[in-house]
Amino acid sequence: MNRAARILLLLLLPAVQPSSRLAAQRPKVEITTTDAFDARTIPPYRGTHPDVYAYIDGHQAEHLAHLQRWLRQPSVSAQNQGIAQMAELVRGDLRALGCRESELVPTAGHPGVFAYCDEGAPKTLLIYMMYDVQPVEPSEWRSPPFEAAVVDHELGRVLMGRGATNQKGPQRAFLNAVAAIRAVKGKLPVNLLFAVEGEEELGSPNYPQVIDKYEARFRTASGVFFPFNAQSANGDVAMFLGVKGIVSFELEARGGPQGGPTRAEIHGSYKAITDSPVLRLVQAMASLTSKDGNTITVPGYYDRIRQPTVEEQRLLNGLLPAWTAHEPGLRQAMGVEQWIGGMQGRATQLEYLFNTTLNIDGMWAGYTGPGMKTILPHVATAKLDSRLVPDQTPDEALRLIRTHLDAQGFRDVAIRKLSGYPPAQSSVEAPLVRAAIGVFNKAGLTPSVAPRLAGSAPYYVFTERLKLPMVAAGLGYGTGAHAPNEFMVIEPRAGSRLAGLAGIEKFYVDLLYALAEVR
Amino acid sequence: MNRAARILLLLLLPAVQPSSRLAAQRPKVEITTTDAFDARTIPPYRGTHPDVYAYIDGHQAEHLAHLQRWLRQPSVSAQNQGIAQMAELVRGDLRALGCRESELVPTAGHPGVFAYCDEGAPKTLLIYMMYDVQPVEPSEWRSPPFEAAVVDHELGRVLMGRGATNQKGPQRAFLNAVAAIRAVKGKLPVNLLFAVEGEEELGSPNYPQVIDKYEARFRTASGVFFPFNAQSANGDVAMFLGVKGIVSFELEARGGPQGGPTRAEIHGSYKAITDSPVLRLVQAMASLTSKDGNTITVPGYYDRIRQPTVEEQRLLNGLLPAWTAHEPGLRQAMGVEQWIGGMQGRATQLEYLFNTTLNIDGMWAGYTGPGMKTILPHVATAKLDSRLVPDQTPDEALRLIRTHLDAQGFRDVAIRKLSGYPPAQSSVEAPLVRAAIGVFNKAGLTPSVAPRLAGSAPYYVFTERLKLPMVAAGLGYGTGAHAPNEFMVIEPRAGSRLAGLAGIEKFYVDLLYALAEVR
Repeated sequence: MNRAARILLLLLLPAVQPSSRLAAQRPKVEITTTDAFDARTIPPYRGTHPDVYAYIDGHQAEHLAHLQRWLRQPSVSAQNQGIAQMAELVRGDLRALGCRESELVPTAGHPGVFAYCDEGAPKTLLIYMMYDVQPVEPSEWRSPPFEAAVVDHELGRVLMGRGATNQKGPQRAFLNAVAAIRAVKGKLPVNLLFAVEGEEELGSPNYPQVIDKYEARFRTASGVFFPFNAQSANGDVAMFLGVKGIVSFELEARGGPQGGPTRAEIHGSYKAITDSPVLRLVQAMASLTSKDGNTITVPGYYDRIRQPTVEEQRLLNGLLPAWTAHEPGLRQAMGVEQWIGGMQGRATQLEYLFNTTLNIDGMWAGYTGPGMKTILPHVATAKLDSRLVPDQTPDEALRLIRTHLDAQGFRDVAIRKLSGYPPAQSSVEAPLVRAAIGVFNKAGLTPSVAPRLAGSAPYYVFTERLKLPMVAAGLGYGTGAHAPNEFMVIEPRAGSRLAGLAGIEKFYVDLLYALAEVR
Repeated sequence: MNRAARILLLLLLPAVQPSSRLAAQRPKVEITTTDAFDARTIPPYRGTHPDVYAYIDGHQAEHLAHLQRWLRQPSVSAQNQGIAQMAELVRGDLRALGCRESELVPTAGHPGVFAYCDEGAPKTLLIYMMYDVQPVEPSEWRSPPFEAAVVDHELGRVLMGRGATNQKGPQRAFLNAVAAIRAVKGKLPVNLLFAVEGEEELGSPNYPQVIDKYEARFRTASGVFFPFNAQSANGDVAMFLGVKGIVSFELEARGGPQGGPTRAEIHGSYKAITDSPVLRLVQAMASLTSKDGNTITVPGYYDRIRQPTVEEQRLLNGLLPAWTAHEPGLRQAMGVEQWIGGMQGRATQLEYLFNTTLNIDGMWAGYTGPGMKTILPHVATAKLDSRLVPDQTPDEALRLIRTHLDAQGFRDVAIRKLSGYPPAQSSVEAPLVRAAIGVFNKAGLTPSVAPRLAGSAPYYVFTERLKLPMVAAGLGYGTGAHAPNEFMVIEPRAGSRLAGLAGIEKFYVDLLYALAEVR
């Protein structure tokens, strides 16, 4: 390049740079190993506890009644319905289990429950539970949501009610298993710590306060267990070792010293001389992504995303055949004719599990009724979320967005953080994880093991803060978690691969013993 | 520039072009004359009609009762409340005035009313009226909206009720003036055609059907008159000779064959592999303007805007001192701390009256409640409007926007036209306009005369289609047109420059005679 050309290039560069969005690229995830994880290589759990199983079989009516008692106590966190009563019910049940300590934990929101069952065992397991449930629309239920009736279903006999599967059913089944061991053996094979919250359905805003109070004691645990109906309707078992984090926030543009109406909407004809907060919000949001909405153009946003570890790659490789087979059905279920750019198979697997997102959950401004009302609104608002993968953090994500908006001239667009937490992940090599897989293998239901879910949960308090592995596992099937007619299968029809309540409880018995036994 | 530099420039150009929005500029309006229009140069109307004035003074109770009768008949077009009754009431009143023809005009919506009063006069005036009113929230009124009570007010005694000033009050006052002339003189000085609509508050969607039916007869008129309370609270009179046009439309993005959820919202975590219709809409809207939202980046959008004629420039020059003085108060009333870029005076005058606009009146998508619901919505919608100035047209405007969206890759974003009509304008030299100014001058209330309003009205049917000048004029003051406690001053307090009902009616008498007399 000669000197004149170089000078010309320099002169042109500032004009080219505003097109930086064209240069933004979704991060490339590299798979460097062909090795695949296979859960069958983990030995099945070999222990057996026939006296406890027999006790469980002999107490099914009583055990089911415990589940029903939990479901019949409403505990809708969003509406503060029955929260105090449910917290007390959980505290009392944990005390009745023989936990020496069992107490409510006040927080800035709904109380948590802490309990400790000291069995003099060398190992301690921390049990995570939630006692709150989603709101209900009673008119849409075929059996009333807080009646907890056992009804017939094509899958067998099911317990129908709010919380049946999310999470009162599996949690109380776990306590039934604990009670059965104590009744038969006198002692549990591991000590149990409980850290229960009443705000899971609100995004766990105050759960860190529960952790704060008992942090040193929780750190003595070997892992965290979340009783969970992990079977699909066909009996298959899925495990996941992590979740994405999330940061939720609002963007809002208002009239102010920089221009635009400040007090109320004005007549639309004034747009000729007046700035529009709605257009400002639209422009600010548009600056965050590529034109197709699929690449985040915030400088540095992808920089903290680390490549998958070899362990994660092995898990991905192991999952790929099932993912690829499952994916067209998923598209159909979601009503999506093609994924982004027509991607399939490995590409979707990697994007789904290993990329961050920027999503507009909702937005609103001005007149939204029928016909037309020509106004220039003074405020426009949007709710956005970004799913976070290792090593992103909520505060860093918002800082990058703020810096970008400022650099693009959108200082007038406010960011209001709603909630946020980082991702969480456990290793497939953790003793608790291996114990869970071993117990599934004993049941002849080898699980698929995903490095993480694309969804979010605040498990970072366990994995990142307490540095404990966490597992959500269990036999059993239920559905309708955030919908009408939520249920959990209690007695599957003949020939089903699904576990019923007794089978679910026996899994938990085996898991506690298996964990006590793994090195 | 040497050859290497030229080649480099060519290579770089494609990269530069996507930033074309940077190059977009609001059109420059050029003022080439310093001459200013002064309404005082138009001779005051010299006629006088004392017998008619005396009749008006002697029949004020009866005349006020006519206004009240109109106001007490609800006629809310948006809610189809009292429409048929009001149309019939207007038809009957026009018949009672002595109009030989008076008939309802069915349309696809609410009916219009046509009437013709043949006075054997050489000139014919077409009267535009609307009989519908805005909806009401009765609880917000201090006197019930359809009671039409005369109440005390700091400005004097006022008639309070829906339609008092918009437009039943001034329209029925005009008919009172016509009735007074006929009672005293037997004949009117001009023939009158009436073209009344019942959908003005809906944007006059079917008014062209009223014009269609009588087009040839309407073309015989010398102009169109709209009885109108043209005084400000302080007594000043403003006239405008035109209005902007408008095109209103919705933009909508939905999931479809190109991607995105098609049936319903899906869980927000699927953003990782799924296109977002909300982000598509945001990107499409962002592509329509510069980052500040104030320059339309649709290629060619400004091309049809013509420069102000010398007549328009003289009107602008004449208005400038008053506009400049008025502008800070307008900002305060609107709650706007600064106009776009801090512009003032001439710049705002030109932008306000001579530029087109693109405005987002409202938008909505997804979850808009408290807190967070992490969803990927399947549809996002916005309502937009663009005010049109000569020589823009609604269809050309939408065609340019469609072409631009297609070129930018937004074929998946639908445009739904809601309504639209072109701008309208009359000349200050039109006999009807000169007559109106002359009558104002006779009253000692020389009007300010604007070439147009920044607002929109479908007067193109008169000015562009029938090629008739149109004037909205009258003495009198009222306010609250689209708000609670709408009123019109009937008896101003002593010392006020406002006309009361009698003065308003005498203005209309003079105007009809003045029009008959101008060459």
